[in-house]
Amino acid sequence: MPLTFFTPGPAQLYPTFEKHLQTFVAGQLGSISHRSQQYRDLHRFTVEQLRLLLNVPDTHAILFLGSASEAWERILFSCVELESFHLVNGSFSKKFYDYSNALNKYAHKYEKPMGQGFSAAEIVVPEYAELMCVTHNETSSGVQMPVAEIHKLKTKYPDKFIAVDMVSSAPYPELDYSLIDNAFFSVQKAFGLPAGLGVWIVSEKCLEKARLIKEQYSIGAHNDLLTLWKNAKNNETPATPNVMGIYLLGKIAEDFNSLGVSNIRKDTERKAQLLYQFIQSHDAYSAFVNIKEYQSQTVVVANTTLPSADVIKGAKAKGLVVGSGYGEHKATQIRIANFPATSLEQTEELIKVLGDL
Amino acid sequence: MPLTFFTPGPAQLYPTFEKHLQTFVAGQLGSISHRSQQYRDLHRFTVEQLRLLLNVPDTHAILFLGSASEAWERILFSCVELESFHLVNGSFSKKFYDYSNALNKYAHKYEKPMGQGFSAAEIVVPEYAELMCVTHNETSSGVQMPVAEIHKLKTKYPDKFIAVDMVSSAPYPELDYSLIDNAFFSVQKAFGLPAGLGVWIVSEKCLEKARLIKEQYSIGAHNDLLTLWKNAKNNETPATPNVMGIYLLGKIAEDFNSLGVSNIRKDTERKAQLLYQFIQSHDAYSAFVNIKEYQSQTVVVANTTLPSADVIKGAKAKGLVVGSGYGEHKATQIRIANFPATSLEQTEELIKVLGDL
Repeated sequence: MPLTFFTPGPAQLYPTFEKHLQTFVAGQLGSISHRSQQYRDLHRFTVEQLRLLLNVPDTHAILFLGSASEAWERILFSCVELESFHLVNGSFSKKFYDYSNALNKYAHKYEKPMGQGFSAAEIVVPEYAELMCVTHNETSSGVQMPVAEIHKLKTKYPDKFIAVDMVSSAPYPELDYSLIDNAFFSVQKAFGLPAGLGVWIVSEKCLEKARLIKEQYSIGAHNDLLTLWKNAKNNETPATPNVMGIYLLGKIAEDFNSLGVSNIRKDTERKAQLLYQFIQSHDAYSAFVNIKEYQSQTVVVANTTLPSADVIKGAKAKGLVVGSGYGEHKATQIRIANFPATSLEQTEELIKVLGDL
Repeated sequence: MPLTFFTPGPAQLYPTFEKHLQTFVAGQLGSISHRSQQYRDLHRFTVEQLRLLLNVPDTHAILFLGSASEAWERILFSCVELESFHLVNGSFSKKFYDYSNALNKYAHKYEKPMGQGFSAAEIVVPEYAELMCVTHNETSSGVQMPVAEIHKLKTKYPDKFIAVDMVSSAPYPELDYSLIDNAFFSVQKAFGLPAGLGVWIVSEKCLEKARLIKEQYSIGAHNDLLTLWKNAKNNETPATPNVMGIYLLGKIAEDFNSLGVSNIRKDTERKAQLLYQFIQSHDAYSAFVNIKEYQSQTVVVANTTLPSADVIKGAKAKGLVVGSGYGEHKATQIRIANFPATSLEQTEELIKVLGDL
């Protein structure tokens, strides 16, 4: 029996994945040179489809990395000479903060317990922090920072750079790239692809900053922003990239564009609404995130009265895979991914199965 | 008509690639959690097959990165506090050197023109250089450094670390890991897989050194050696890895082990012998590398009397793809990959086609 994955990444593969994979294999695209026109056309196609999908202006480059975690490092190298600032409310926002310390930057943080969210009004960014690091969707806790709050934060501190982790939510958040300097995601979440590719959307202003930093400090050697940007101008990458991942991402983005991103966003909200209604009304579950505006639309986290392992096992027996809680919440929570690869019907089926356990 | 790729990477995919890919897809392995026992078993299988294939002892970890270029950076971060030393005789050995400068290390080099090789006897490593960076197979020029010379170099300087770039030759070189501290390769060369995965073989001594360096300097944040090593002990990676690439690499390594690595090495040498005999005897071609012991067994580079674009076009019309020369030699050379994915019969066919042009 094939399983349906509601896990928050790696996740259910998008229904068209296999078709696109077959086209890739039949076209022998795994063997083409990454310095050929054929590759450059493939690369440009993916960038164009992502630009359309996410409404990314020409002031920003769309760059490919090995993973979104790599983006954390490259953004810190490129935008921070000395000090960064981080909103921390879960494991992944904490890792972004840890990366800054590991690069010997001075990392400030405003931290809240897992499950709590941030509004722009309450945030005070230290004077010398050059970059504000925010997580649109904290995969570990199911907290989202509303896009309007992210925009307000940048408007409050227009002279500081901002970086938005949308690893487990893109293409859901509708970011305004006239405000957002950096955003990044990986393909094994809402794009429904196998892992192994990260995408970094970055502005010309960051490029200028990286140039300045490089006069005095290292901005890294592998996939440093200056070299990535220069190669991207020519629809290439500095090193041999994950050509298969880039091809598949372009095809999935094209599929999303055919559906229309606003429809994808509406579907996401509709399915999220059903999931939250269910966990809030059923005795065996409750929402971990209590404030509605902070409830993630793409990763729904529920406390379980049964041990979560029993819930996971019970659902799996029906062919449905949900994620365990993260870290200290492993035994008492489940995480349900709500990505485009799982349909309204599959979501209703999951709700029925979870309700009957 | 399907093409046969004799290009030096991305290259011809290994004949069993499609079968393994289908198994991956059918098993829904693109959706499994990278923190599950199922993933850890997959990861361990690949490491075990590589350990067997390359004869890697337990003193060394086998780690996964986004590309071999990333390995350059991670090795420099981990083994060099202040100074590195590089043998440079082509574009890729030059990039390793450039990476060291970009990380603000002091990089020494001993440089020769493209096409020339190195022997241990002639090399003098500066006193304070901590790491010797050597390229077993310079993909840009088709020069190899004989394994015996690499071992001699380490024996001459036993207190310095050594890193061996075997990107476009592994599993051909039979390295003695009691001497070799670091070696690395990527999967889109002789392993016949799509690009997007690098492999770093690294010793416990490097781990100790990285710990010492970290007391004073940054050793990077993403895929830093301490975190990679700790995760590898548990058959995991710090970030979500290219699970598909790791799975396929394990299956191809298993196929290689079934054939026996000594047979693969013998086949490689037999095919290389045919290719060199041909280009040395035919008026339209000549070997770029003149000294036999420096002639790469896996990337054969030939000067062409015709413009190389005409040779490439003529071969392609017969379904055979060879690579162009690299950089300044683009118009006057061809590069022929001699990897396990192309058989003796296909090599003989290529020789016939090139001979008839």
